[in-house]
Amino acid sequence: MEPHGKAHQKEHHEDAVSPDPVPLSKYSNRVELKTLLERIDGGAGLAGKRVVIGGWVKSSRAVKKDSLPAAVFVPPPSSGGSQASPTPSVSCTEIINSKMNIFRKLFDVLSGGGKTYPIFDKHDLPCQKATSSPEYIIHFQISDGSSVSTLQVIVDSVLSSVPATQLMSLGTCIVAEGVLRQPLSASAKHVIELEAEKLLHVGTVDPENYPLSKKQLPLHMLRDFSHFRPRTTTVGSVTRIHSALTLASHTFLQQNGFQYVQVPVITTTGVGEMFSVTTLLVETDDKDEKKHVNEKVDSVKAAVKEKTRLIDHLKRSDSNREAVVAAEHDLKKTNDLASQLEMKQKPKAEGATHIKPDKDFFGCDTYLTVSGRFHLESYASALGKVYTFGPRFVADKIDSTRHLAEMWNVETEIAFSELDDAMDCADEFFKFLCKYLLENRHEDMKFISKRVDKTITTRLEATASNSILRFSYTEAISLLQKATTRTFETKPEWGVALTEEHLSYLTDEIYKGCVIIHSYPKEVKPFYTRLNEDKKTVAAFDLVVPKVGVVITGSQNEERFEILDARISEYGLKTKEKYEWYLDLRRHGTVKHPGISLRMEHMLLFATGLPDIKDAVPFPRSYGKANN
Amino acid sequence: MEPHGKAHQKEHHEDAVSPDPVPLSKYSNRVELKTLLERIDGGAGLAGKRVVIGGWVKSSRAVKKDSLPAAVFVPPPSSGGSQASPTPSVSCTEIINSKMNIFRKLFDVLSGGGKTYPIFDKHDLPCQKATSSPEYIIHFQISDGSSVSTLQVIVDSVLSSVPATQLMSLGTCIVAEGVLRQPLSASAKHVIELEAEKLLHVGTVDPENYPLSKKQLPLHMLRDFSHFRPRTTTVGSVTRIHSALTLASHTFLQQNGFQYVQVPVITTTGVGEMFSVTTLLVETDDKDEKKHVNEKVDSVKAAVKEKTRLIDHLKRSDSNREAVVAAEHDLKKTNDLASQLEMKQKPKAEGATHIKPDKDFFGCDTYLTVSGRFHLESYASALGKVYTFGPRFVADKIDSTRHLAEMWNVETEIAFSELDDAMDCADEFFKFLCKYLLENRHEDMKFISKRVDKTITTRLEATASNSILRFSYTEAISLLQKATTRTFETKPEWGVALTEEHLSYLTDEIYKGCVIIHSYPKEVKPFYTRLNEDKKTVAAFDLVVPKVGVVITGSQNEERFEILDARISEYGLKTKEKYEWYLDLRRHGTVKHPGISLRMEHMLLFATGLPDIKDAVPFPRSYGKANN
Repeated sequence: MEPHGKAHQKEHHEDAVSPDPVPLSKYSNRVELKTLLERIDGGAGLAGKRVVIGGWVKSSRAVKKDSLPAAVFVPPPSSGGSQASPTPSVSCTEIINSKMNIFRKLFDVLSGGGKTYPIFDKHDLPCQKATSSPEYIIHFQISDGSSVSTLQVIVDSVLSSVPATQLMSLGTCIVAEGVLRQPLSASAKHVIELEAEKLLHVGTVDPENYPLSKKQLPLHMLRDFSHFRPRTTTVGSVTRIHSALTLASHTFLQQNGFQYVQVPVITTTGVGEMFSVTTLLVETDDKDEKKHVNEKVDSVKAAVKEKTRLIDHLKRSDSNREAVVAAEHDLKKTNDLASQLEMKQKPKAEGATHIKPDKDFFGCDTYLTVSGRFHLESYASALGKVYTFGPRFVADKIDSTRHLAEMWNVETEIAFSELDDAMDCADEFFKFLCKYLLENRHEDMKFISKRVDKTITTRLEATASNSILRFSYTEAISLLQKATTRTFETKPEWGVALTEEHLSYLTDEIYKGCVIIHSYPKEVKPFYTRLNEDKKTVAAFDLVVPKVGVVITGSQNEERFEILDARISEYGLKTKEKYEWYLDLRRHGTVKHPGISLRMEHMLLFATGLPDIKDAVPFPRSYGKANN
Repeated sequence: MEPHGKAHQKEHHEDAVSPDPVPLSKYSNRVELKTLLERIDGGAGLAGKRVVIGGWVKSSRAVKKDSLPAAVFVPPPSSGGSQASPTPSVSCTEIINSKMNIFRKLFDVLSGGGKTYPIFDKHDLPCQKATSSPEYIIHFQISDGSSVSTLQVIVDSVLSSVPATQLMSLGTCIVAEGVLRQPLSASAKHVIELEAEKLLHVGTVDPENYPLSKKQLPLHMLRDFSHFRPRTTTVGSVTRIHSALTLASHTFLQQNGFQYVQVPVITTTGVGEMFSVTTLLVETDDKDEKKHVNEKVDSVKAAVKEKTRLIDHLKRSDSNREAVVAAEHDLKKTNDLASQLEMKQKPKAEGATHIKPDKDFFGCDTYLTVSGRFHLESYASALGKVYTFGPRFVADKIDSTRHLAEMWNVETEIAFSELDDAMDCADEFFKFLCKYLLENRHEDMKFISKRVDKTITTRLEATASNSILRFSYTEAISLLQKATTRTFETKPEWGVALTEEHLSYLTDEIYKGCVIIHSYPKEVKPFYTRLNEDKKTVAAFDLVVPKVGVVITGSQNEERFEILDARISEYGLKTKEKYEWYLDLRRHGTVKHPGISLRMEHMLLFATGLPDIKDAVPFPRSYGKANN
């Protein structure tokens, strides 16, 4: 049981010296492109191997066959690529993509997109193509999402039942079997390519309606097509980085003795703007559904009539008892269905117009959780060190590059510890994640660094190897006050909440790195944060990073019953009895316990340099927008 | 980066031969009991070491001091336990727990529960105790949740500012510093115990109101106290098993080349009974909140008046300009607060009485996700092999031992593969989890096996090492039909959905093990499942286990546009346009892709033998019930 990265490296090393077939992707008969392209030799040692690959077309170009010497089309011997063949003439290459309409006519394009074509190769079906169609050698760059790199795949158009233009469209899915070879052109940048001998599957695109047909669409325009975004190299890399951060989080915490606890998403407590969860609204306003139900009711009622008639007939015609029983049983079932449908016809709007929690699904008001730490505290008070990782929800009606309505947090609680311990934990956790990416997502980091932010790799390296400075809120305010040449929108005075502008000044300008700020005024932190001895500040901290802001928050929550009880009352929490269970943890066997909360999306922004959180998450949910 | 289990083992081995201090729990200055008790030597090699431990009292007994020879109280030399001391006389042991009321009077118990007492030890504060109080030697069994086992801790009551009775209550939290020693009694079962020299923290309980005061409360009675449940050894073990399954899932999938994808919890699509997510209901009915806001408005308005008066006074009294500006700024802030509060006073009920999706937070109807596979398919169509792990919601109004409204699934999608590959994946994933528990949660499995179900270890072993039989739905029906001596509530006829009773017969009686059933009639599986060539069955399967039922479901979802489009229409899906993005994945670059979904709670039921899902999850949400 080694971690992902190492296991794969090992495979590669073994593979480089072994005559065995190329290792298959698990649960597939294809080979992942990563296995070919991320080898130390770039894949050169695999020349001559027969493989099946699958992926999507990133780019393509075609060379008309009669413009080339016939020798190119002799299938290479199965032992390897035919290095002796002349290189294709680049001068007569036609970029078919850009001449789509002309080629469409030429090839008598089949109508409609999204068709799946049957398996087919030149030996089986040599006569399906109109002999008049020109024949092409197509050079594809194919990506399968396992790697940043693409594989060059060479396909003779005669192999395909799909016209070459369709085949060549950006985004077409191709599964091909063939032999790996070193490129025929000595000037080629890649060290290995695939000469296809069979096309096992083609999933076409409709280029007119495919949003990614336009190359290099900016990230913000891609947001309307979140289901297609991962097909871009950037979002692919971001996803793989996100995936690595997820495993790294579980690994780090479990290695350090934390137990995972599954805390609920639907809760009865919480503060701030929350989403309600209810079953009283469903389908109150859905005309399509009603129409559909009405139609069904009519047809089922007709069936009831018909079946009743049948039973009458059976009885009258002296049929055997069994047939009558069976028919009656059948009628009963149809009748049941009819009454179920009739129930659905009744307007449910009554419930929605007059919301009463006791009539709702859980019999009480329920919300989407704002934080898992309350529930986690209950488990820390029994298991000592616990963590969770799940979605958290805030219904703030703002549109920001740093905020979403649904975000995922890694949260921990550490019994028998204090704030300093939690700061140590935040520090080590954060650095572990940085180091993990550098070690396990090298290719992706390199690509993102080129495409999004050139400084990210150095920033991660610097973060991973330096200690993170810690100072108090009071010191932070005094630093900000010393910045006399600088005017802040919110004047830095003791007692104000630090704004994005303040934090950015401290991390981007003063320290040029990550800092931990602790011991905030009690007014700017939640009621459950532990009161310090000065009675003015509380045991809370934020780990703040350049460009992004707060990535980890932490606090030691109040373990003293009387103080917590008083603060709940002072805070004016509606329906205080909802917090009785939380107070219970202090009534019985209370213990000091700090915890931290890492905002995964913000970590991802730090690691990738992406400027907008909407591009960091697969399907972002923000005020006024929830597509797909 | 080794997995959790191994890393810990290594620590232990090193530790057994090293003279270094006992390794501390990370982010704490205490030692985890696991580190002491789960060593190969049971901790014997640690005698003489000074440690701090923390935990909760599982049981306790006290021996009156004057009933023992004085020699026992001589502090042992710091080099180790004093083996020569006479053993405490068990005959004069008093089980104080059972005589709580009498002892309360004796010790003049401090009022109120949940108090935290200051750090205090006998050298610092020798005179705080009433000299008349009898003194005791208390033997505690302490658990810190890191292990099934407890540590015996011996405390001289003179160390404590808390009366011995309170200290001894079940559930009291104790942090103690002391020296490890071999037990004085030769007949003791444990090999190491701690003689406390300082009590660093005591978190008392109020035994009258502490639900766990009654020993061995049955699991179903504990459900009303979900925040205390983890303090029982059984729920502690279940949590650690759950935690191991979580890490094992991520590890297995990432090792096999799957990328984690964060799919949304709030969705716009879905089928069946769903929960709505809305912000139009919040706080419509909350009288407390209104009262609180009203009070605040009054006080803020008074402040505005007061501050206006002050400004007038400043202006009239010819104060400096700065003071007036500051006062005016202050007034502005108070005025802002006043108008914010007035906004809150306005009834929000209007929104709730007339729900219009376009006025809701996202501007459309949103629900809690039923399955992550739709969104996952979008990422599989770009990255190849992807998975997710998150909460799924079904608002079925049923109360069952196998169903909750909120459950967590591990879901995968595998591009370029077919149903058989997904069955292989399910088979290996399931066995990996079984093996992982046997290797990494030995102590917990042993305990759960003793307490809940004696057969679980053998069942896990058998599952991990045998291949899982696969047969079709048609074969399953024919097997059920051959069971002539058995009457099923639903007659096994081709076309019916297999019931719990059918599945239980196949796994518990016929095969006495796990089976995979595939190729179901299309009517019993969702519309998106791929139609087989017979046009009657679809490419779906279930992995069914004894006693629990379905733990993994899998299917190859329809990749052919025309067939999926037709089935969506046939299914009569309301608002078909919601599925346009899903159809898009088939319009552009479609690919064959099966996937699986593991129900984590059901896996946990299989692994622990627990009969009710409400006991497997920390905070279960079910019809009519969502406590804490």
